[in-house]
Amino acid sequence: MSEKVAVYRKENFNAAHRLFNPAWDFATNDKVFGKCNNPNYHGHNYELIVKLTGEIDADTGYVYDLKTLSDIIKENVIEKFDHKNLNEDTAEFKNLIPTAENIAVVIYNTLRAKISVKYTLQVRLYETAKNFVEYPA
Amino acid sequence: MSEKVAVYRKENFNAAHRLFNPAWDFATNDKVFGKCNNPNYHGHNYELIVKLTGEIDADTGYVYDLKTLSDIIKENVIEKFDHKNLNEDTAEFKNLIPTAENIAVVIYNTLRAKISVKYTLQVRLYETAKNFVEYPA
Amino acid sequence: MSEKVAVYRKENFNAAHRLFNPAWDFATNDKVFGKCNNPNYHGHNYELIVKLTGEIDADTGYVYDLKTLSDIIKENVIEKFDHKNLNEDTAEFKNLIPTAENIAVVIYNTLRAKISVKYTLQVRLYETAKNFVEYPA
Amino acid sequence: MSEKVAVYRKENFNAAHRLFNPAWDFATNDKVFGKCNNPNYHGHNYELIVKLTGEIDADTGYVYDLKTLSDIIKENVIEKFDHKNLNEDTAEFKNLIPTAENIAVVIYNTLRAKISVKYTLQVRLYETAKNFVEYPA
Amino acid sequence: MSEKVAVYRKENFNAAHRLFNPAWDFATNDKVFGKCNNPNYHGHNYELIVKLTGEIDADTGYVYDLKTLSDIIKENVIEKFDHKNLNEDTAEFKNLIPTAENIAVVIYNTLRAKISVKYTLQVRLYETAKNFVEYPA
Amino acid sequence: MSEKVAVYRKENFNAAHRLFNPAWDFATNDKVFGKCNNPNYHGHNYELIVKLTGEIDADTGYVYDLKTLSDIIKENVIEKFDHKNLNEDTAEFKNLIPTAENIAVVIYNTLRAKISVKYTLQVRLYETAKNFVEYPA
Repeated sequence: MSEKVAVYRKENFNAAHRLFNPAWDFATNDKVFGKCNNPNYHGHNYELIVKLTGEIDADTGYVYDLKTLSDIIKENVIEKFDHKNLNEDTAEFKNLIPTAENIAVVIYNTLRAKISVKYTLQVRLYETAKNFVEYPA
Repeated sequence: MSEKVAVYRKENFNAAHRLFNPAWDFATNDKVFGKCNNPNYHGHNYELIVKLTGEIDADTGYVYDLKTLSDIIKENVIEKFDHKNLNEDTAEFKNLIPTAENIAVVIYNTLRAKISVKYTLQVRLYETAKNFVEYPA
Repeated sequence: MSEKVAVYRKENFNAAHRLFNPAWDFATNDKVFGKCNNPNYHGHNYELIVKLTGEIDADTGYVYDLKTLSDIIKENVIEKFDHKNLNEDTAEFKNLIPTAENIAVVIYNTLRAKISVKYTLQVRLYETAKNFVEYPA
Repeated sequence: MSEKVAVYRKENFNAAHRLFNPAWDFATNDKVFGKCNNPNYHGHNYELIVKLTGEIDADTGYVYDLKTLSDIIKENVIEKFDHKNLNEDTAEFKNLIPTAENIAVVIYNTLRAKISVKYTLQVRLYETAKNFVEYPA
Repeated sequence: MSEKVAVYRKENFNAAHRLFNPAWDFATNDKVFGKCNNPNYHGHNYELIVKLTGEIDADTGYVYDLKTLSDIIKENVIEKFDHKNLNEDTAEFKNLIPTAENIAVVIYNTLRAKISVKYTLQVRLYETAKNFVEYPA
Repeated sequence: MSEKVAVYRKENFNAAHRLFNPAWDFATNDKVFGKCNNPNYHGHNYELIVKLTGEIDADTGYVYDLKTLSDIIKENVIEKFDHKNLNEDTAEFKNLIPTAENIAVVIYNTLRAKISVKYTLQVRLYETAKNFVEYPA
């Protein structure tokens, strides 16, 4: 049983955001981002799925304790983003547009720094049930 | 077939909001509303289910054309709330706390004015998959 | 424990149908039923939820054996409608428009004849995740 | 706004159980409960939805703080049943068959004792996505 | 941030179809396709998920505007298949059996012709919640 | 059309299990497995998705008949695990901890022996909606 198994953990956070590029005027932002450019923000229930790939530990039968993975996600991602305004309340999106793509990359990089490199990581982020992203692809 | 049938239509909107009572100081709001009191707002993917009850029309087999119901909901509710900040962008919540309960009542009253009283209406609103409300109960 | 408990069983069937009133010309049907009036039919994955209300039997802890309820639904409803053209293949909709409302009433009447009147019945039928009906309301 | 609004909170627990009536021999239990009578138990991911009905508090916009409702459910229901063998580990089902119906009644009675009678309560319990119950009906 | 990100968009269509090979007699078709060979057709709520992989555009934070992707899917796929009889109403399945596999390949080829080759595409198609396909694998 | 298509089939089973390593004392098992180490077992509604990849057969339009795949899964996996205690009732987990990872590997190996090697297989197993695994990764 030396082949790889992937384990997945799902978590949630609810946040406000606004999509706009400060280098552009309002008309350009409006054309590119439409109603997502509302200056007063709108929001989403984000659903986050973290995939971690590795070998099964023969003693535990686990690739990775999903309770531990959940705790790492909660401490490093959910605490930071849940019930927050991504543009206003987080350092990560002061100078980065909080699109689902960028949020997924930020979450991946955050978790990558906390989990041994012997495990492969991938992040899937649902902004809505119809729009979602995955990184790395 | 004179008995009543209920028909349901589901729609969605994504919005930002903040829960706080302007008559209270921040500490009281924080105690009552916790992280929902974030001054910079947070947000949700709201899921709205409208229930309309009436008799089946023998000619159409419909209680009510759900395409028409969908159009009424979109024109009167979704257009007003989708990708908006409920506190800042809507007249309805200038002086009313945008809790799920109050949003459901506002949506019900809005639709009630647009649909013949021969039909009974009820609104269910999901703020998250775990928290939802229904009006009238 | 003499109060009532409701038990629910979910089943599925996939069927084709067309909505049109043979008493009307095509233009009128087109206006009323739109793309649902396609003469070559379209189809749905119908999801059926049957609610049965009664008292808990002290010996079994059941209101009604849900395996038995499932069998009754399968024999009397699913066998008849699954992978069928509701307009062409079923006696029930030879002279009745197969709207979700009418299908729900037909299913209710079918099951009502098979289950003791000491139990209350109600049928919910999802035509899609966004459009569904309930009878009796 | 003196009309009633219902608020709902969803929680989960995972448990093992066995359905059998100790007053019956194995053959009778096998006939009535089939594979649910496995002496070594089987299990489910139970999904619990608690409905609480009351009036909106004008100061908070809440019928009932859903965080408080969640805490009450977790302390009184989830702690007791989650990752437990309902037959072996709980006082409630020492002499009561842990059918979904009986579990729902037990949960209702447990919560009823903890929440002011000015609120109406109802419990929905999913044993699987296809089998679920509601009390009171 | 030169690594690839995948973005996904979900759309729906409802259609009738029949599975049969005109080169075979009815008995052979019946043996191979069972109830899916009903000459009067049956139908499904198809759920389509399109995956597009590319690099994040630094100016927009998008890999690809999902509103644009949605419009392309709607104009080229949903308009053609929604509320249609796949066998009778579409050129694509005049001489091709409308299995989920073949529908997915047809949709992929349709979209591939409309979207720059700098993006990788993949199509997932749910015929029911229990049966679904993906192309290319 | 010589490229590969993946087809998926979803099935379910409900089972009890306990996570513990007999080589360890209770305290160590408790530390590693927490409430999953309950000696009286707990349980889950397992959701199993089997992915099979191959080429479309030009005569049938199928990669693989999903009814056949369903039958193979039911006969070899569901019959063995459904309404069972994985630790007590199955040979596979007499000496193997029934974690989701190990269950997925066992299911994969079981199905691999029943399906032609010209098809690639992969198994996804949901223990809960929040915890799931995939093999091979």
